[in-house]
Amino acid sequence: MTNIRIGLLGIGTVGAGTFQVLKRNQQEISRRAGRGIDIAVVADLNAERARQIVGDDVEVVSDARSVVARPDIDVVIELIGGYGIARELVLAAIESGKHVVTANKALLAVHGTEIFAAAARKGVIVAYEAAVAGGIPIVKALREGLVANRVQWVAGIINGTTNFILSEMRDKGLDFQAVLKQAQQLGYAEADPTFDIEGIDAAHKITLLSAIAFGIPVQFDKAYVEGITALHRPDIRYAEQLGYRIKLLGVAKRTERGVELRVHPTLIPAKRLIASVEGAMNAVVVKGDAVGTTLYYGQGAGAEPTASAVIADLVDIARLQGADASHQVPALAYHHDCQPAEAPPPVLPMEDVVTSYYLRARVADQAGVLATITSLLADAGISVDALLQREADEVTDFSEGQASQPQTDLIILTHETREGTFNAALEKIQQLPSVLGSIVRIRKEELD
Amino acid sequence: MTNIRIGLLGIGTVGAGTFQVLKRNQQEISRRAGRGIDIAVVADLNAERARQIVGDDVEVVSDARSVVARPDIDVVIELIGGYGIARELVLAAIESGKHVVTANKALLAVHGTEIFAAAARKGVIVAYEAAVAGGIPIVKALREGLVANRVQWVAGIINGTTNFILSEMRDKGLDFQAVLKQAQQLGYAEADPTFDIEGIDAAHKITLLSAIAFGIPVQFDKAYVEGITALHRPDIRYAEQLGYRIKLLGVAKRTERGVELRVHPTLIPAKRLIASVEGAMNAVVVKGDAVGTTLYYGQGAGAEPTASAVIADLVDIARLQGADASHQVPALAYHHDCQPAEAPPPVLPMEDVVTSYYLRARVADQAGVLATITSLLADAGISVDALLQREADEVTDFSEGQASQPQTDLIILTHETREGTFNAALEKIQQLPSVLGSIVRIRKEELD
Repeated sequence: MTNIRIGLLGIGTVGAGTFQVLKRNQQEISRRAGRGIDIAVVADLNAERARQIVGDDVEVVSDARSVVARPDIDVVIELIGGYGIARELVLAAIESGKHVVTANKALLAVHGTEIFAAAARKGVIVAYEAAVAGGIPIVKALREGLVANRVQWVAGIINGTTNFILSEMRDKGLDFQAVLKQAQQLGYAEADPTFDIEGIDAAHKITLLSAIAFGIPVQFDKAYVEGITALHRPDIRYAEQLGYRIKLLGVAKRTERGVELRVHPTLIPAKRLIASVEGAMNAVVVKGDAVGTTLYYGQGAGAEPTASAVIADLVDIARLQGADASHQVPALAYHHDCQPAEAPPPVLPMEDVVTSYYLRARVADQAGVLATITSLLADAGISVDALLQREADEVTDFSEGQASQPQTDLIILTHETREGTFNAALEKIQQLPSVLGSIVRIRKEELD
Repeated sequence: MTNIRIGLLGIGTVGAGTFQVLKRNQQEISRRAGRGIDIAVVADLNAERARQIVGDDVEVVSDARSVVARPDIDVVIELIGGYGIARELVLAAIESGKHVVTANKALLAVHGTEIFAAAARKGVIVAYEAAVAGGIPIVKALREGLVANRVQWVAGIINGTTNFILSEMRDKGLDFQAVLKQAQQLGYAEADPTFDIEGIDAAHKITLLSAIAFGIPVQFDKAYVEGITALHRPDIRYAEQLGYRIKLLGVAKRTERGVELRVHPTLIPAKRLIASVEGAMNAVVVKGDAVGTTLYYGQGAGAEPTASAVIADLVDIARLQGADASHQVPALAYHHDCQPAEAPPPVLPMEDVVTSYYLRARVADQAGVLATITSLLADAGISVDALLQREADEVTDFSEGQASQPQTDLIILTHETREGTFNAALEKIQQLPSVLGSIVRIRKEELD
């Protein structure tokens, strides 16, 4: 069979990794794919650097637009990133009948509906294994491996930067800012880390997973997104004492009223396998009605792990090239022409999400405070699962500035409740004169 | 598109689970598959019980042979098990041009070469996701998701019964026999548990994974198999003190001299994620040159987890039915007509395996014993990684019968060495007069 011919757009870290792995493992990959895979042309604004990476055997151009319409190219790999030119190039490649492989989660989470519809019209594949959790084949597992299941929820550590930061904060007892700085020096965090630390990158990824899991459109604009910048050391320590770890989790959950889609710091029982995922590693847990709980773990970023996913998509395409589009796996797992009778479930607003909570209040160390707070919770129908009170002398480490009166930290774990209900109760507690400073609230998931 | 029609052979636990999940999730599965999946006929020797499970809408026959040649059947699911009639039926189904789905690891590990060759000749698929690690889509992950990688090793907890037993022995400090009895009462172990506790079931599975990972034929007869029946409580406890857990591991490793293929109790660093896999759960770790270490975790047995894998195979087949065989994923990952220049690497005899070891010797508590043993190791070129000596009073718990002289337990962890070299040294140590009773030897893998 003839080799499949690739146009690679953007040869940065992942592009270079893809080129190198394809070259190094050429023989094994072609024995598995049943045909060779040739990078025929590379487009990069920095043609000089591209030339250094690919050597003299591969054509290098600076204009990516010239590649997407070329009749000698079968597949376009888009590794430029962002929503602008990348969207334009992906749509142009589809329009000219080419399959597309992309690692661009931002693009697909925001413009996925448009892009996947265009691909379906033209009968081409848009593959994106590399867009979620790097080298972990989670898209394939969820879309094909667990196809028998009614998925109940997906929860994942899908941003390595934030998991590295949280691991270091816990291990070394450091503050967020100190660890962020260190992560930047080590290359685990970008110079502008906003997308990572504010949870946006994780939200792009969980948006894609929610669409695959539940047959809903990609709806990044409906995702609730909260990052890790407001996390404090004492909460990591208290969580530990209560048997939990704090992780930045992407959660997509099916409920009777709709789909929960959210990213936020989350207490997870320390005994769950995912709680032991440390450093820059990623892991995704999927709960299906037939299979039960499954977990997928690996490197979520980096040149070669991401290249591993890009090439897996290439081989899938190489196998199916020339076959009828009906033989393809649908981009978001469900066939467009097999819609159910009812509309897809809505993404719930955050106030309708049901979860449990950790709250920490710095309170005046005086009689009656605990009773007042717990009765405000009880009045709202929120039941307490666990309670921890730390004497003033134990918490001086954490107090900001000088305490003017005896203080204590009150930590409460609640059972499940509606977020709107919890917020209303929290507001009342916050207004108590005996509550000093802002209450810390972190969501909690049992993941069982 | 017309529904795909299935003949189900054998409706025991997994067969009933498959029927029920297909029925319960009918709508979601057909929306994903792009067509309906109909169980058209069920064959079981106990037709009465089969009828109770499937109701009146499905044809029930007692003769499985009558099903495999029927022109109205597209796919045969073989859930009979064993090497005898199952082999005959699978080959007959292939011969009449049907795709086959099977959960039968024993059959494929022993007769896979014959069966896959027959399927390739007829251009049909023999799918077996359910044969390894139940609901975990590990065959798909390794064969498709990690296709870019030169796999370095695969290591897995792929037998739930033995992992349950080892977890209980550790947690509750019980002996093997006591836990086995309990596992049998709970239904985690069969009345005749030989296949599980002697490591044979795990060896079937790692044989299949080794073929996918390295492009070698299935060679169950070349696998080294050692079960957990000789494990003792004190070793589990000493391992713990040294920072390790003991798991029954299937290991397939590529080395310069050939492929290691082995099942045995193994010390694993407690900090590795797989060391925390408890109870009847399964997990497989795959190390690839591009992706690094990835892990896949879930239920390795049971009606619905296994059904989840059977149905995933059915949907893959439903999608590809009618497509040319060149669009299929090769059964063992590699295309037969794309052989490399050199022959596939051989499976190494156990004496040529390179690993590290835990050894425990009950020794007379007298001067010079330690020096004698360590110099025997040094003479053989085996270096010591860690050493633990337990005073006699600490080990009385574990001593069998009355000690006639002061004794102590000497525990040594070695660095990597050839098994043949280690065995020779062990034999010399065993013959020392100061060594009382049989030396315990357990292999150790760092899995990094």
